[in-house]
Amino acid sequence: MDLSPVIRKKISDSFAAQSMMKTMAVEIVNMDKGLVTLASPILTGCRQQQGFGHAALTFALGDTAAGYAALTVMPEDMEVLTAEIKVNLLAPATGDRLRAEGRVIKPGRRLVVVQSDVYAQSANGEKHIAMLTGTMVPVATG
Amino acid sequence: MDLSPVIRKKISDSFAAQSMMKTMAVEIVNMDKGLVTLASPILTGCRQQQGFGHAALTFALGDTAAGYAALTVMPEDMEVLTAEIKVNLLAPATGDRLRAEGRVIKPGRRLVVVQSDVYAQSANGEKHIAMLTGTMVPVATG
Amino acid sequence: MDLSPVIRKKISDSFAAQSMMKTMAVEIVNMDKGLVTLASPILTGCRQQQGFGHAALTFALGDTAAGYAALTVMPEDMEVLTAEIKVNLLAPATGDRLRAEGRVIKPGRRLVVVQSDVYAQSANGEKHIAMLTGTMVPVATG
Amino acid sequence: MDLSPVIRKKISDSFAAQSMMKTMAVEIVNMDKGLVTLASPILTGCRQQQGFGHAALTFALGDTAAGYAALTVMPEDMEVLTAEIKVNLLAPATGDRLRAEGRVIKPGRRLVVVQSDVYAQSANGEKHIAMLTGTMVPVATG
Repeated sequence: MDLSPVIRKKISDSFAAQSMMKTMAVEIVNMDKGLVTLASPILTGCRQQQGFGHAALTFALGDTAAGYAALTVMPEDMEVLTAEIKVNLLAPATGDRLRAEGRVIKPGRRLVVVQSDVYAQSANGEKHIAMLTGTMVPVATG
Repeated sequence: MDLSPVIRKKISDSFAAQSMMKTMAVEIVNMDKGLVTLASPILTGCRQQQGFGHAALTFALGDTAAGYAALTVMPEDMEVLTAEIKVNLLAPATGDRLRAEGRVIKPGRRLVVVQSDVYAQSANGEKHIAMLTGTMVPVATG
Repeated sequence: MDLSPVIRKKISDSFAAQSMMKTMAVEIVNMDKGLVTLASPILTGCRQQQGFGHAALTFALGDTAAGYAALTVMPEDMEVLTAEIKVNLLAPATGDRLRAEGRVIKPGRRLVVVQSDVYAQSANGEKHIAMLTGTMVPVATG
Repeated sequence: MDLSPVIRKKISDSFAAQSMMKTMAVEIVNMDKGLVTLASPILTGCRQQQGFGHAALTFALGDTAAGYAALTVMPEDMEVLTAEIKVNLLAPATGDRLRAEGRVIKPGRRLVVVQSDVYAQSANGEKHIAMLTGTMVPVATG
């Protein structure tokens, strides 16, 4: 479903203000109502001890995609905070790039339940490397 | 309890091989049997949209401290992988530095259950900002 | 996909041996490879303080459906244990009956990652009341 | 710290209204500010396929102890709902009785983060069988 220009801009501005996203070279791929997709390269500075993508990179993509998915179903004057999120790591983050799809499982005035799936992309295609489920909380903007 | 020099070296070497730790300027503060403490500044490149430390930084510290805590109770020829970990975010990562204490709740041959607590440090003292619980899996080293 | 008669019997026998399932009047609705469906009434003895189904009932259905889904993708001589499972409760368990669909997200020799969704059924149809994600561990049978 | 008689009564009344607690023969052992202890026998009707206590029993004790612990730090006219809770199962629920200690990790007006530990008791003493962490939400009473 189409997203209002106000919410698109709110997400873009918020995303641009997160220096962690720049450090990890994450970008927004797509925004729809209840569904936000992010992607990033696996930078040489974001790796674990075996040279694969670090779980913190996977987490950053999954948590951020889920948070902004939640923001798409909240009133326009709200911000979103992660209350909790669990990640199940399914496979190492091999390959060149990561892609995260965050979506809303259950919207709500007080809590929004979300899920993200993270995929590693290589010449061989995509591999499902992580599933995250979490709870996002709307908070009034400053 | 004292850690064997072999395990201390294994953790130090593994930690040094994680480029994500360098990017985030994380360092090992202390290693004991079943308890590993990490710390980092909140770099300007590791922030969320309001200027606080990013949840991915909190996650990186908590997950890594817990993983290495698990490694201290495994046989010396084993590596450790995170199977799952949940973070409950308790407060924003304000202040100058973060400190994470990872510890073993239940050792095991097949699974090691761990907990981490992450604290934000400022001139006003320490604040508990996150609690993580997870499951670490021993894997044979390459 | 079709399940082998050996695995169908293993699940049926294991289910029948769980007295908790009898106490809660849970029954197996369907078994397929990677997907098991359970259902139960909301008995008067399984309620919380407002008269809705108790979270322990929702948990029992979701955890058991997920565990047996995992069992369908394990070698025939294995049992399954829940290592961890998180439930996000989405809505109260109102209505007459619960239905849980457990499925395998990622099979594995050492760990099987699973998800369950639990629905409350009433004259008005079905409502999604809980999402569970967990980690199941194969263990050799006694 | 001492609990107000109003909150003690609110918890006792709420607990008495949960038929699931009666079915499982759970009782309140102790209530303090931020800390509630429950216990139960492992009834023959609450077992899993190997004859040990069922994970749903462990969950019921842990979730309920944590929820009432949260209730002790909320305003007197509030009820509590579980938004999410993860259980890490550490060992089988062998023995005769279970004991669950629920406590508040972080109180809050909108969310209360909680932890529970569940122990199995036998002639050999107590064994730590489960750790739960969750998020409780205050809701206005009916």
